[in-house]
Amino acid sequence: MSDTICAVDRARVLDRLERLSKFGALDNGGICRLALTPEETEAKAILIGWAESLGCRAFIDPIGNLFLRWERTPSDLSPILVGSHLDSQPVGGNYDGVLGVIAALECVEILATQADRLHRPVEIAVWCNEEGARFNPTTMGSAVHASHLSLAEALAVTDVDGISVQSALEQSLALLSEKNIAVLPRGLMGKYHAYVELHIEQGPILEAERIAIGIVTDVQGLAQFNISASGTAGHAGAVPMDARDDALGHARRLMNELDAALSRFDGIRYTIGRVDVAPGAINTIPARVNFTLDLRHPDGDILSRAVAEVRRLANHEQLTELIVQPPVPFSTEIRCQIDRTCERIGLSSRMMVSGATHDAAQIASLCPTGMIFVPCRGGISHNENEYCAPESVFAGTAVLVETVLALAERAMQ
Amino acid sequence: MSDTICAVDRARVLDRLERLSKFGALDNGGICRLALTPEETEAKAILIGWAESLGCRAFIDPIGNLFLRWERTPSDLSPILVGSHLDSQPVGGNYDGVLGVIAALECVEILATQADRLHRPVEIAVWCNEEGARFNPTTMGSAVHASHLSLAEALAVTDVDGISVQSALEQSLALLSEKNIAVLPRGLMGKYHAYVELHIEQGPILEAERIAIGIVTDVQGLAQFNISASGTAGHAGAVPMDARDDALGHARRLMNELDAALSRFDGIRYTIGRVDVAPGAINTIPARVNFTLDLRHPDGDILSRAVAEVRRLANHEQLTELIVQPPVPFSTEIRCQIDRTCERIGLSSRMMVSGATHDAAQIASLCPTGMIFVPCRGGISHNENEYCAPESVFAGTAVLVETVLALAERAMQ
Repeated sequence: MSDTICAVDRARVLDRLERLSKFGALDNGGICRLALTPEETEAKAILIGWAESLGCRAFIDPIGNLFLRWERTPSDLSPILVGSHLDSQPVGGNYDGVLGVIAALECVEILATQADRLHRPVEIAVWCNEEGARFNPTTMGSAVHASHLSLAEALAVTDVDGISVQSALEQSLALLSEKNIAVLPRGLMGKYHAYVELHIEQGPILEAERIAIGIVTDVQGLAQFNISASGTAGHAGAVPMDARDDALGHARRLMNELDAALSRFDGIRYTIGRVDVAPGAINTIPARVNFTLDLRHPDGDILSRAVAEVRRLANHEQLTELIVQPPVPFSTEIRCQIDRTCERIGLSSRMMVSGATHDAAQIASLCPTGMIFVPCRGGISHNENEYCAPESVFAGTAVLVETVLALAERAMQ
Repeated sequence: MSDTICAVDRARVLDRLERLSKFGALDNGGICRLALTPEETEAKAILIGWAESLGCRAFIDPIGNLFLRWERTPSDLSPILVGSHLDSQPVGGNYDGVLGVIAALECVEILATQADRLHRPVEIAVWCNEEGARFNPTTMGSAVHASHLSLAEALAVTDVDGISVQSALEQSLALLSEKNIAVLPRGLMGKYHAYVELHIEQGPILEAERIAIGIVTDVQGLAQFNISASGTAGHAGAVPMDARDDALGHARRLMNELDAALSRFDGIRYTIGRVDVAPGAINTIPARVNFTLDLRHPDGDILSRAVAEVRRLANHEQLTELIVQPPVPFSTEIRCQIDRTCERIGLSSRMMVSGATHDAAQIASLCPTGMIFVPCRGGISHNENEYCAPESVFAGTAVLVETVLALAERAMQ
């Protein structure tokens, strides 16, 4: 291990993870910190305070992405962007997103001690509504920032209580204002020299192979659907089986057909994550079932064929395509830079595809982009049992710091 | 058609159905009048007013069943009980339960004009929480009244908001009291000469066969279960298919096995009416799935074998038996009385099993009990499209009046 890992202030990093874990803490040890809620805004407020004490200035773009800009001297060169997100799933953990943000702040902490080596500004990005748990779709903030989703469309999205992104964002800004936290406006489509994001793997591969660092080559393609099946409600005791028009029966038949068809695509991952049955009474035949389908593949052609299968099989039901996003390859230069950094520090690494999508997949169209993965226990995330061991926290942070330093100092100038 | 159908005041009956349909009316034309809510209590208040104007007195037992006693002169003879319920499913219609209550009131209206023919008192029963939609189980009030369910256990049941039956009942009684409606206390396990209930069929048979009246021979046996399947949450993109522990996958496999096993029982009816998936996010592998299973058969032995199959198949999951209730045969004497009445009035009729359970199935252990069915359109109930044609409303009411008159006058004295 090199001096860089030593330079990471371990106590400071763990303490900050611990302090942010208070915002939205659940009794079961998990986190519920949905996008633009008071809990998430409080976490941002703490973060802004830490960053300002290093001399950063805070900016927010029209979709609520937060930028914390650090510059030794005013510079016309485009900044290195480094960050992740602070929102969580309804029952999430304290590493998904948070780790990348705290590590980005640690970058600035360490770079500030070596400021004379830097030619470029560094900015921390905290993307808005990455999880898509409160407001659909996922990676909303980075998608709008990179013009893959229209601002007006995103602002109009509502949560289950009918609150729009626009209204939630106004409330979040008002809360920051009440706390006398100054944030400056910032436009979309920022110009960046590079973007690097540290994240837990959210899968089991690094842990199983006992590898310290994953260097992400691509984010696999993603398609998400809502599927609605309709039937006729009726009394569970009174309507004979052969006279039924059971929406759950229709939905389950389609789910079984999807199983049979999709499992034939090698390397595919698909998930039915939500099922809503109406009216939802024990003694009433279901009249309507809505369910979601999440489909992923690293190969764009195979993903397209799988999507076509879904469309074909669901043609009797109401199919809504929420998102169809081809695989995103990351910058070869940044992959090489991360690889060299791992080599120099003495950490094992492997190239890998990201199963989850990330804000980095949106930002990759704006600038050379890369991602660093660290193992999480059992590959578990989106769950109160999500856990990233301290040595992985430190290793990932060190690789991030070294990579950003190399990029800000000399590479690709 | 005889004079009895003419004696039914058609305008009065339709007007009363119409007036009660205002309490809990939904925009879609359906009714949401859950047990012991202000909506249901308001409907009871109106009913009590109508009954008091005929000289009835109101009683409520400890579980909230309402009795409206009509007697020409005080009598020591046990009364004829006639009634149904006023609560509805979350999206129900205006005939399930209400028809039987309004028809019972019409009985008293007509009997009051022929009071000198009667030897026995007549009471209208409005059973509490028949639907089991707000508080589990179904037919709670009649089950407690007939000592098939303990009062203490029933009072402690809570709804989704954590409100207990006890607390909801106190609120309902307080609302009646505010309206200056006097109700007298009454004990459980009443002594009755007979109980007769008019109800819509809630199935398609009478309509399909163009038969005016169904004479119920038995209520089929009922078993209801909650089944929970557990898994491990994980990221939909990051966890490979073969590394998953998907609770919905487990639940769906069991549902398919239940399909295969239960469909082998001839004449069975089974329904999965609720499915709750947690955490319920589009990009998260489900960690827990709860679903309900409702199982019915008119043959007690076959039902027992089907229940054994459910226990065997669900042995890897958490199975909760909510209710297991054998088939209930109704009184032969009352069936014959209804049959004779149909014959005399000139209405087509058939004997049939009730697919749904009813309060009558609970009360059958207290006294000779019978049920009269009338067709409903498409066999639909528990739905805003529930509809019973006026001619069926009048025919069912007439058969009820004649049957009650015959029982109160001479039969089985």
